[in-house]
Amino acid sequence: MSGPRSVPPGVQEAASLLTNAALQVLNGAAYPLKAARLMTRLVRKPVHSPGAPPGVLTHTGVRKVERVRLRLLEYDAEHLKELEPSSVQEALAARDESLVGWLNVDGLHEPEVLRELRDHFGLHLLAMEDVASVGQRAKLDEYEDNIFLSLPVLSFHKPTMTVEVEQLSLVLGPGWVLTFQEGAGEVLEPVRERLKAAQGKIRGRGSDYLAYALTDAVVDRYFGILEQLGDAAEELEGRVLENPTPGTLLGVNHLKRELLVLRKTVWPLREALGAFARTESDLVSESTQVFVRDVHDHIIQIIDTVETLRDLASGISDLYLSGVGQRTNEVMKVLTVMASIFIPLTFVAGVYGMNFEFMPELGIRWAYPVLLVLMVTLGVSMLVYFRKRKWI
Amino acid sequence: MSGPRSVPPGVQEAASLLTNAALQVLNGAAYPLKAARLMTRLVRKPVHSPGAPPGVLTHTGVRKVERVRLRLLEYDAEHLKELEPSSVQEALAARDESLVGWLNVDGLHEPEVLRELRDHFGLHLLAMEDVASVGQRAKLDEYEDNIFLSLPVLSFHKPTMTVEVEQLSLVLGPGWVLTFQEGAGEVLEPVRERLKAAQGKIRGRGSDYLAYALTDAVVDRYFGILEQLGDAAEELEGRVLENPTPGTLLGVNHLKRELLVLRKTVWPLREALGAFARTESDLVSESTQVFVRDVHDHIIQIIDTVETLRDLASGISDLYLSGVGQRTNEVMKVLTVMASIFIPLTFVAGVYGMNFEFMPELGIRWAYPVLLVLMVTLGVSMLVYFRKRKWI
Amino acid sequence: MSGPRSVPPGVQEAASLLTNAALQVLNGAAYPLKAARLMTRLVRKPVHSPGAPPGVLTHTGVRKVERVRLRLLEYDAEHLKELEPSSVQEALAARDESLVGWLNVDGLHEPEVLRELRDHFGLHLLAMEDVASVGQRAKLDEYEDNIFLSLPVLSFHKPTMTVEVEQLSLVLGPGWVLTFQEGAGEVLEPVRERLKAAQGKIRGRGSDYLAYALTDAVVDRYFGILEQLGDAAEELEGRVLENPTPGTLLGVNHLKRELLVLRKTVWPLREALGAFARTESDLVSESTQVFVRDVHDHIIQIIDTVETLRDLASGISDLYLSGVGQRTNEVMKVLTVMASIFIPLTFVAGVYGMNFEFMPELGIRWAYPVLLVLMVTLGVSMLVYFRKRKWI
Amino acid sequence: MSGPRSVPPGVQEAASLLTNAALQVLNGAAYPLKAARLMTRLVRKPVHSPGAPPGVLTHTGVRKVERVRLRLLEYDAEHLKELEPSSVQEALAARDESLVGWLNVDGLHEPEVLRELRDHFGLHLLAMEDVASVGQRAKLDEYEDNIFLSLPVLSFHKPTMTVEVEQLSLVLGPGWVLTFQEGAGEVLEPVRERLKAAQGKIRGRGSDYLAYALTDAVVDRYFGILEQLGDAAEELEGRVLENPTPGTLLGVNHLKRELLVLRKTVWPLREALGAFARTESDLVSESTQVFVRDVHDHIIQIIDTVETLRDLASGISDLYLSGVGQRTNEVMKVLTVMASIFIPLTFVAGVYGMNFEFMPELGIRWAYPVLLVLMVTLGVSMLVYFRKRKWI
Amino acid sequence: MSGPRSVPPGVQEAASLLTNAALQVLNGAAYPLKAARLMTRLVRKPVHSPGAPPGVLTHTGVRKVERVRLRLLEYDAEHLKELEPSSVQEALAARDESLVGWLNVDGLHEPEVLRELRDHFGLHLLAMEDVASVGQRAKLDEYEDNIFLSLPVLSFHKPTMTVEVEQLSLVLGPGWVLTFQEGAGEVLEPVRERLKAAQGKIRGRGSDYLAYALTDAVVDRYFGILEQLGDAAEELEGRVLENPTPGTLLGVNHLKRELLVLRKTVWPLREALGAFARTESDLVSESTQVFVRDVHDHIIQIIDTVETLRDLASGISDLYLSGVGQRTNEVMKVLTVMASIFIPLTFVAGVYGMNFEFMPELGIRWAYPVLLVLMVTLGVSMLVYFRKRKWI
Repeated sequence: MSGPRSVPPGVQEAASLLTNAALQVLNGAAYPLKAARLMTRLVRKPVHSPGAPPGVLTHTGVRKVERVRLRLLEYDAEHLKELEPSSVQEALAARDESLVGWLNVDGLHEPEVLRELRDHFGLHLLAMEDVASVGQRAKLDEYEDNIFLSLPVLSFHKPTMTVEVEQLSLVLGPGWVLTFQEGAGEVLEPVRERLKAAQGKIRGRGSDYLAYALTDAVVDRYFGILEQLGDAAEELEGRVLENPTPGTLLGVNHLKRELLVLRKTVWPLREALGAFARTESDLVSESTQVFVRDVHDHIIQIIDTVETLRDLASGISDLYLSGVGQRTNEVMKVLTVMASIFIPLTFVAGVYGMNFEFMPELGIRWAYPVLLVLMVTLGVSMLVYFRKRKWI
Repeated sequence: MSGPRSVPPGVQEAASLLTNAALQVLNGAAYPLKAARLMTRLVRKPVHSPGAPPGVLTHTGVRKVERVRLRLLEYDAEHLKELEPSSVQEALAARDESLVGWLNVDGLHEPEVLRELRDHFGLHLLAMEDVASVGQRAKLDEYEDNIFLSLPVLSFHKPTMTVEVEQLSLVLGPGWVLTFQEGAGEVLEPVRERLKAAQGKIRGRGSDYLAYALTDAVVDRYFGILEQLGDAAEELEGRVLENPTPGTLLGVNHLKRELLVLRKTVWPLREALGAFARTESDLVSESTQVFVRDVHDHIIQIIDTVETLRDLASGISDLYLSGVGQRTNEVMKVLTVMASIFIPLTFVAGVYGMNFEFMPELGIRWAYPVLLVLMVTLGVSMLVYFRKRKWI
Repeated sequence: MSGPRSVPPGVQEAASLLTNAALQVLNGAAYPLKAARLMTRLVRKPVHSPGAPPGVLTHTGVRKVERVRLRLLEYDAEHLKELEPSSVQEALAARDESLVGWLNVDGLHEPEVLRELRDHFGLHLLAMEDVASVGQRAKLDEYEDNIFLSLPVLSFHKPTMTVEVEQLSLVLGPGWVLTFQEGAGEVLEPVRERLKAAQGKIRGRGSDYLAYALTDAVVDRYFGILEQLGDAAEELEGRVLENPTPGTLLGVNHLKRELLVLRKTVWPLREALGAFARTESDLVSESTQVFVRDVHDHIIQIIDTVETLRDLASGISDLYLSGVGQRTNEVMKVLTVMASIFIPLTFVAGVYGMNFEFMPELGIRWAYPVLLVLMVTLGVSMLVYFRKRKWI
Repeated sequence: MSGPRSVPPGVQEAASLLTNAALQVLNGAAYPLKAARLMTRLVRKPVHSPGAPPGVLTHTGVRKVERVRLRLLEYDAEHLKELEPSSVQEALAARDESLVGWLNVDGLHEPEVLRELRDHFGLHLLAMEDVASVGQRAKLDEYEDNIFLSLPVLSFHKPTMTVEVEQLSLVLGPGWVLTFQEGAGEVLEPVRERLKAAQGKIRGRGSDYLAYALTDAVVDRYFGILEQLGDAAEELEGRVLENPTPGTLLGVNHLKRELLVLRKTVWPLREALGAFARTESDLVSESTQVFVRDVHDHIIQIIDTVETLRDLASGISDLYLSGVGQRTNEVMKVLTVMASIFIPLTFVAGVYGMNFEFMPELGIRWAYPVLLVLMVTLGVSMLVYFRKRKWI
Repeated sequence: MSGPRSVPPGVQEAASLLTNAALQVLNGAAYPLKAARLMTRLVRKPVHSPGAPPGVLTHTGVRKVERVRLRLLEYDAEHLKELEPSSVQEALAARDESLVGWLNVDGLHEPEVLRELRDHFGLHLLAMEDVASVGQRAKLDEYEDNIFLSLPVLSFHKPTMTVEVEQLSLVLGPGWVLTFQEGAGEVLEPVRERLKAAQGKIRGRGSDYLAYALTDAVVDRYFGILEQLGDAAEELEGRVLENPTPGTLLGVNHLKRELLVLRKTVWPLREALGAFARTESDLVSESTQVFVRDVHDHIIQIIDTVETLRDLASGISDLYLSGVGQRTNEVMKVLTVMASIFIPLTFVAGVYGMNFEFMPELGIRWAYPVLLVLMVTLGVSMLVYFRKRKWI
């Protein structure tokens, strides 16, 4: 009675092994969470209630700092002043118009701060609305007295393999640059360091070069993110070739999405930087535009790489699917070979298990061994035949 | 005799479970109805009988109000007059040319009303035909004395997850704006409120700014609809990962269609608003065009998001299909394992069930237990082999 | 002996049911015929033998009328003359140069007629060749003294669900319009009626407005055809959701093709009408061009709808295929469940059917009922297991 | 013993029938050969060794004639001289500058001939290199004193269904035209005939019209090839609907490739002829450009048709694959139905084949016929159930 | 007892044969390595740390030579001087301004060398950064006094079938050309030879012609690589038709990737050479631009061919997959035929193996042979039926 009993556990074990992989897919650990966050990243929340007047300064993003932090940096080739004023008034009072000034605002949740800056610097209603309602497409808007530039700052969250997008708003005026961020991001730090260290020619140039340097610092980070996504693609491909599981496919899908986010973010930047490089505004000198063109070239290279990685990720999916198909084919062939060989043999055994009274073969002395030999021969010749047909 | 009897119900039950899902697909509840409505939404009805002269003012849409309702609003920075005239004559008589005037017409089924307005304001034959024959592509037509703008007003019908499209026609003339709607839609209400509350700068600006404000109110609603479709996508993805049913796939297909409707509706608007932002007509001041450019940017962002959601929806379909394929593979593997293990064993049992007279093994004392042990060994070793091959 | 006999008919019946659907596909009724006609519709016959001189006036289409029929209509705001001359000479003699003249030619198979008209009106060799060699891409050619316009006239043959394409050639000269058709199509009748009834402003305008009115009459018919194809798509989708057969898929393929024909026909018209709307020729007044722009807008809307219907048709195919895949999966699962449950049970029964002399269980009193109970338990528990795994 | 023996041949026969189709695919007769030739047709051989100076006159194609053959034709409206000079010197000496001259060169393997012509007519180094290194993309290069045009001459090799591409190089100078071909192609014969017969207006026009007439003769041949490919598509579709074999799919693939070759060949011609039609060179008169525009229109129509045929060929593949999938489904269903009906019945028979001593049913008088009836009932009711579920 | 024993080895053998192919895929020999290298080839390493000042001269590639090698070649039509200076100073000192000078730098890892050249020739900060940070997109940057051109030098590594990309930077100034390479590539050797041999007209022309000649030498090598990839495609297609293995598919995937690399590399070159051919800089004469246009044409032809090869590779994948599907179908059909024939027959045998006491057939004399005949008849008629249905 061990036969029947031994079956169910075996089946259960087999079945549980089989469905193990499937359950991994269905439960999928962190993925549904990430999917939810994807929507937040992709679908911009409405700026204001429909029909409301333009120029609303309510921050639409996440509050990342306790209170708004202002940092003013003023410099020319010889001087450098750094100040962390506690209010806009203090900052404006301290401003030395003979120097290039850079006022950085971390935290967008105090409309009053934005309004004061807007009124002082004569920014357009809509420019300041775009600062507050983060999640803008990268764009460059030229106004009469200043240029508004919205730049996506990307960072890569390694544990969840997710590309995070934050908005950096930059306003370039004659002799000054304003930058606005949600939190105290470290993306602009290297430029601050260069200014303090008087590294390169940055101190000797105007506010347009500062705007270029900040833009360049933002865009340079993209290469690092591409490299990490490239590594992820590489690793996924290795797994598809060595040990493909449904989780691998989910990983490829996840990669595709991050590339989709990246693409959606970077594409508009091409146009915005193109406009920056070609602007005829007096605010940007021709010698600076040569540098902006270089950033523009970087963006084109980044877009190229994103597209190539997308092609690659599609290739990995295809590889996975054709690998799965391949394996199913092999499983099918085993089934077919087993069934095709044993079903006829079982039939023959069944024939001689019939209880007819008059079955002359049953009484023959060598019938049984001869039949066994015949059966083995039949089975082997079918194996040979299948092999010749290259089915096994 | 319980064996044979117990089989059919089991099979029936199994089969009915299996086909349950299929029937859900085939009956599909609300979907065929929606499909029918889709056609109505996508294929515009012929404007007039082929070959008829242009300028026909027969309403081609659905009559949504009992009688045509006129609402006249006149204002400048200091004054505001509101009137609900009972006839076009009354409205025109009450008109104060020194104020900016906005005449809103709800209900398009009285050709006489449209004709009177056309003749009074000197609208082009074709512009007025486009007002009456709703379902126009979004477009901007510049005539000598006025600008005709047709805008799709979107609303989202939650129970059927359907995007409804209505047409708002807007004519901008010197000092006046005409708007035409099929029913008393609430889409323009916020602007009316702003005018009455003298909120923002709207009262101090001309009719071109009013046209912008109305356009902006229409476009702002799109973000809310995108958000709801984004939520739907999120939920569908969750279902695909947790509990995929054929209904989920139908849902994804439905989502794709709504996005198709949205895309078809919004794309032409890009061009129309681009023309609005770049027009050299005297009717639109440069300072207003800055605002129109902002709406134009919103439309580009909306198109971006629609395209991204389409990519996403395709990704969800793919996920569903690869999940279904995955499960079929697993079911196949169970079948293969069961068949591959038991078919040979059954054959062996069949051999010793043969009735040959001379089968020496049958008389051996330990043959039966030895054979049982061999069978179990064979089965287990095949299980081990399959597991090593990673088939189970 | 009823067992073996009852099998073949059942199998045959089952098999014939199964292949019934397949045969429908293979025989496919009207489809091969239509395919043949598709080629004729899509691949234009060579105009003349390669290398022959241009300007050949041999009709390349189907002769649809017994003899060429000329109809001359002359009008201005006050007068209207209608004439059906029996020859070109008679027509030209009757021509009153002070009126707008419209000469319509039904039947292109008499080169002499075409040559006389060409010589009288000073048409270009190539323009007249394009009149005779029907199947031209829609196009507008501007010559010094006249404008040649080739327009595809569409009609929908309901029984075969086929879009028929005919060519209407139109030449616009100063004060006159020539139109050429293969047969006496009714597409231009409404314009003739409007002229006679002095409906709209057509009688008060020049030959350019007549050319517009004729073009508009041709394009207006497209909407009706789109509506019918939209209805077909709707019906096919209903069938896919309710009762999909291979014939449904063939129907969708057929729909796709008709949309392909439509697309190929309508796309070039966009360009041709764009050229018409923007032409700087003295032959077309600016006020008429406003109307031509309206027809141009219609064509864009038609192209939009064709593209949307193509997307839709692809969606229906996908739905069909995923539905078929779904059903195959279910059939597979039934097979797997049946086989997985009964194959092990049959093996157990086979074990106790072996003829070993020493099988102690065989002699136990309750062995048989206990085994039956165990078997049922095993089967039921596997069913429960499968259900828990959501396989059934 | 006939049972076991009858099986192997049946299996072998069945299997050989099954693999018959597969082998047809695998051996595939002429296809690998064609594939090889495809590469030759698609990948142009390097012109010269990398880094070598430009202007090399080594023929890179196939030598098709024994020796270079020169044919000079000179004409104006009244005169016509034909000469077959044995050397370039003889040709140049015989040249009458007052007539339009057409010198045709068949055979490109004598660099000396090309060099002499180049030096005499002042052709550019690169133009003459392009003449010798055949396999150029169609292009038009304007030089100071002449226009170089490279035209692909297509012919259709019916037995292998292959499109052959040869290069015709044409140089248009003031009052003369040079043409270069690898072999004595008959493509230019009709123009030669027209010149001799003074057919059409060709004799009264200049060398630009001759260049047009030659181009037109080349392009006119494309229609015939499209027609033959269209016929092939039609026939393949018929076979897919009536009797699909793997060979049919290979045929469709072959068709797709020929269309690929055609597309790759014809697309650049569009640009080249567009440049010809718009050139501002003094060499081409405006009245001739009207004719060139006509050839340009033909090319657009040809490209349209190629694209449509490609869509069509894709449709045929899809039809084939969905037909194959359909048939597999049906085969699967037969298997499922057979197995689902007989596996349980076999189990029941197995139960009553067990050798337990105490099986009370075995002794009942009507047990056997009752069981038979029950079995038949069970089988029939399952058949009915399957049919109700529309699985058979 | 030979039966049961003979089974496991057979199964094992069958299974190992089956999985043999799969393992080849999973282990995949060299492929994972190549994948890793692909990432390196596609994702450019960040130039400098984000935010660092532009103009960094750190080499980002692989150090290929021990020390930097300078080679100076100066020439005019009559003179030629060759020098291998050990330092930049030596090179600059030896420079004869009356001759065209070509300074080639092999090895980019000594920033000092680059800086000295930059300062002497007045190169832009960014141009020199692009020289050092290899992996640039092909591009042409026009500066005031010189033109910077970055060219991808391709080579084909046959054993791994990999396209290697190296960067050649070229700066064209008035009377001089600088070239920079990572290693001592032989790609420019032929031009050096031509200069020395005074072959062609190169010695009589200026530095712009030298820049063209170097560019042409780089581009000419692409044809050879395309030819080798074309051969690979041809061979893979042959294998797909004759003996498809999973390795073949991996090979096609590999080919697709190399084509992706090629495409990504060559596309930007089109634009760069287009800018070269159209530049209005005084540095490039019009007569040289005719030659640059020729290289531009070559690039277009190369892009065409890459696209065609990509289409071709996709076609080969499709062929492979449809071939695999075809074979699975056939295996399925064999299974179905075997099971459909023998399962019913086994049932019949099972019926007469039941142990009922009252089974009248069992006692009939001819029952057994009659049943055998019936069984054979049934089996054969099913075979015939299946064949008629074209399933076998």
